[in-house]
Amino acid sequence: MPSKAHGWGVENAEDTIHALQFERRDPRANDVTVEISHCGICHSDLHFAHNDWGMSHYPMVPGHEIVGTVTAVGPDVQNFKVGDRVGVGCMVDSCQKCEFCKGNQEQFCVEGATFTYGVPDRHGELTQGGYSDHVLVREEFVCKIPDGMEMSKAAPLLCAGITTYSPLKRWGVKPGTKVAVAGLGGLGHMAVKIAAAMGGEVTVLTTSPEKAEAAKKVGASHVLVSTDEAAMGAATASFDLIVDTIPVTHPIDPYAALLRPNGTLVIVGALEPLPGVSGFNLIFGNRAVAGSAIGGVAETQEMLDFCAEHGIEPEIELIKGEQIPDAWETLTKGDIPHRFVIDVENSARG
Amino acid sequence: MPSKAHGWGVENAEDTIHALQFERRDPRANDVTVEISHCGICHSDLHFAHNDWGMSHYPMVPGHEIVGTVTAVGPDVQNFKVGDRVGVGCMVDSCQKCEFCKGNQEQFCVEGATFTYGVPDRHGELTQGGYSDHVLVREEFVCKIPDGMEMSKAAPLLCAGITTYSPLKRWGVKPGTKVAVAGLGGLGHMAVKIAAAMGGEVTVLTTSPEKAEAAKKVGASHVLVSTDEAAMGAATASFDLIVDTIPVTHPIDPYAALLRPNGTLVIVGALEPLPGVSGFNLIFGNRAVAGSAIGGVAETQEMLDFCAEHGIEPEIELIKGEQIPDAWETLTKGDIPHRFVIDVENSARG
Repeated sequence: MPSKAHGWGVENAEDTIHALQFERRDPRANDVTVEISHCGICHSDLHFAHNDWGMSHYPMVPGHEIVGTVTAVGPDVQNFKVGDRVGVGCMVDSCQKCEFCKGNQEQFCVEGATFTYGVPDRHGELTQGGYSDHVLVREEFVCKIPDGMEMSKAAPLLCAGITTYSPLKRWGVKPGTKVAVAGLGGLGHMAVKIAAAMGGEVTVLTTSPEKAEAAKKVGASHVLVSTDEAAMGAATASFDLIVDTIPVTHPIDPYAALLRPNGTLVIVGALEPLPGVSGFNLIFGNRAVAGSAIGGVAETQEMLDFCAEHGIEPEIELIKGEQIPDAWETLTKGDIPHRFVIDVENSARG
Repeated sequence: MPSKAHGWGVENAEDTIHALQFERRDPRANDVTVEISHCGICHSDLHFAHNDWGMSHYPMVPGHEIVGTVTAVGPDVQNFKVGDRVGVGCMVDSCQKCEFCKGNQEQFCVEGATFTYGVPDRHGELTQGGYSDHVLVREEFVCKIPDGMEMSKAAPLLCAGITTYSPLKRWGVKPGTKVAVAGLGGLGHMAVKIAAAMGGEVTVLTTSPEKAEAAKKVGASHVLVSTDEAAMGAATASFDLIVDTIPVTHPIDPYAALLRPNGTLVIVGALEPLPGVSGFNLIFGNRAVAGSAIGGVAETQEMLDFCAEHGIEPEIELIKGEQIPDAWETLTKGDIPHRFVIDVENSARG
């Protein structure tokens, strides 16, 4: 039987986000029902709500940094029980059979992964996200929140955490690796923390000299102001890996020039067309410009466990549901070096 | 004592290549003296001669695909003796101490590798290349030509061979890997042969449908005409690795879109600024655009041995010294699916 849900969402691309009620689908035999305690606000929620990428469906309840407690499990669920503390990230379904699903990259499922909100699922029903009081998700897409981790601080890990952990791990950050992080927003500050925990020597690349203090507070050893031409010149060929979290298009060639031989600039934020890059910069140094999209479910669990083990917590600002419009307004004005998290369990319901 | 050499070179960036005489430097204790039998003509010889990249010194004798026979060795030489069949590629010296030299990437020596011609060496003397009758090279930069390999066919391996072998090996081409090669010139046809020998299923990407026959002749299973929009669309997300040998700037986003998840487009030819790439194409697929510069000396030896083992030979057109200007003229007009090789030992000397 469908269940009634309370949440915050939009009816169309021009709408202002507001409280609303909607129906969750019938539970399936492999579903975990999660009472949501917190949901992080990702910059992409704004892009999806405004249909910036042309793939949105409405009405839409955003949110893919979901944590909460299991309140029911279907008869086929094997790994979760009522009362478990769990998290759900950017995906809620995939074919589970293709080489990418089997290889722990469900985001590249050949039949297409089902994203957590705003798209038709594999049964034709529209998915709705975590800006709401509960959600139903098949168990393969549910992670366990490690004991001792605060739920409010676990939420941002489900997207910002995995999106930065995955490339840092793929490119093998270890003690001594020289890592730069471009942009110090929700993703950037997590990249700094995780890279530092892996042993990397972390530099924050920013256009804002006033972000130096925030950068050091979250674990950066150095700050490089990207508008300072002399400093940028002096930093030529000095980083093994640059994680570029800037959420809009920007010149990438000046960053590529900062890579040591065999280094990689990995784009995790900007989906737009990026300006050109010099073949010389790529060739003379075996450099690469790569992209990285979130991470698979098993890797998300691994990241949660890594963060628990290393005491990594995102910087968060807890808000109530009615403050979502203000938080979105703040995010449209530029990066902030922390994550807004909706305190769903203590918010008034619409 | 300096030795008198005969060769073919240019006096300045506007000069036409012609026969000339010049002096080779004093032999050093760690030098191998090579009587050159053959030298391949690389497209970059033209760029260097014309100072297209702003780093040329004159007079210049080009040539970095050098093979010949050892006629003398210095007292400190340990691994070569008179009569050995040897090859010399794009580099003749480096610091031998830095992490990149020790890591078999002398091309990225922190003190700068010494290229085979057209630059001052570590002693301040101008290097001169293989369009000549003999050359002196420190033994660490000399490779052995495997028994049974024809000298004329070994020559192009010293640059075209290693430049394509190195990325094919780095990205782990193995049976079943779907490899595309963009451009079917000196580099491209070698990339096809080596990738096929590694077990890859090779597609040639070309703007010229008439190159299909040549592509299949050198080992390609398929040909994709890059101006055919329908065919390009159908090939979306179908290659694990694209080796892009096109020697001039060109759009790369249409090629990036052809990569499967986790795939890489590796640029080995175009040093110019490359047009932009879509962040979406990079991110949604964990794709990368990388560069690759030749390869180290040990890897060059490995490539020579690999080619001998697999019977890989470049397609060559043997020319005499006096035909060099015509060959250069042909190369300026566009790619040809083979390599011009100067038959130095049978050419009249200037």
